[in-house]
Amino acid sequence: MATDKIIEEGTDFMPKFDGDGLITAIAQDVKTGQILMVAYMNQQTLDLTIRTGYAVYFSRSRGKLWKKGEQSGHFQKVEQILTDCDQDCLILKVSVEAGQCHTGYQSCFYRALKKNNGKKLEFIAEKAYDPQKTYKK
Amino acid sequence: MATDKIIEEGTDFMPKFDGDGLITAIAQDVKTGQILMVAYMNQQTLDLTIRTGYAVYFSRSRGKLWKKGEQSGHFQKVEQILTDCDQDCLILKVSVEAGQCHTGYQSCFYRALKKNNGKKLEFIAEKAYDPQKTYKK
Repeated sequence: MATDKIIEEGTDFMPKFDGDGLITAIAQDVKTGQILMVAYMNQQTLDLTIRTGYAVYFSRSRGKLWKKGEQSGHFQKVEQILTDCDQDCLILKVSVEAGQCHTGYQSCFYRALKKNNGKKLEFIAEKAYDPQKTYKK
Repeated sequence: MATDKIIEEGTDFMPKFDGDGLITAIAQDVKTGQILMVAYMNQQTLDLTIRTGYAVYFSRSRGKLWKKGEQSGHFQKVEQILTDCDQDCLILKVSVEAGQCHTGYQSCFYRALKKNNGKKLEFIAEKAYDPQKTYKK
C-alpha cells in the first residue's frame, strides 16, 4: 500500500476513489478562476477525460457516464488537471464557451448565504443562457 | 420534501448532507480565486463556521471537529459562503495569511497531471512555509 509520503510528495498519479468508486472533480474556469461546478468521476470517465481532453463525469443521479455538454452543447475543454495532497480530489481547469449550470447560470454557485442570516440565500449572478431553449433542442 | 424548484431556485438555505451527514466544502482564496483545499462539514461544524466566521470542518480521518488552523495557526476567515444548484456542495470564500496545506504549500493542489501522460504528476508550486517547524510548536 502506498505510504502518505509517496501519495503526497511523489509524482505518481494515484487517484483515490471512494467506496462507490468515485472521486470529486471541481471544474474551474481557467481564465477567470471561477468555480463552475462540482461533479464526480469514476476510473472510466477519468480515463476518458484524460484521453479526449473534454470533461466526462459519472452522473450519480442517473447512474451513468455523462459527457458534460452532451445535451446542452456546453462542453468543457480540459486544459489542466490538478490533484490535491491525498489525491482524493481533482480540479479540472477548463475552457468554456457558455453557461455551465443546467439552471442557466454560468456557474452552479449562483447563490450566497446572506450575511448575518444563516438560513437565507441571495442570488449573486444573472443567467447566462435560457435553459428552456437550450434543453428543448 | 422540497422540490427541485425550491432547492434550485429558492432563497432557503437547505444544505444536503450525504449518508454520513457530511457536505463537501471548497475553500477558495477570496482575493486570488485559488482553490486552497477541499474538506467536509457536518451540520455542527457548518453552524460553527457561520457563527464564528472561521472555517470549521469535520475531519473524516480523525472522526472529529477540526477548526482549520487549530494546530498550525493558519486559520481561514470566511468572507462569503456559496452553495450550488442542488445545495450539496459549498464554497467558502476565505481570507488567509499563510499556507493552507499541511505539506507546506499554499494550496493542497500543488501538482498537475503531466500533459500527454495520464500517470505522472509535476509540481506546479513552491512551498509557502516549513511544516516541520510549524507543526513542532
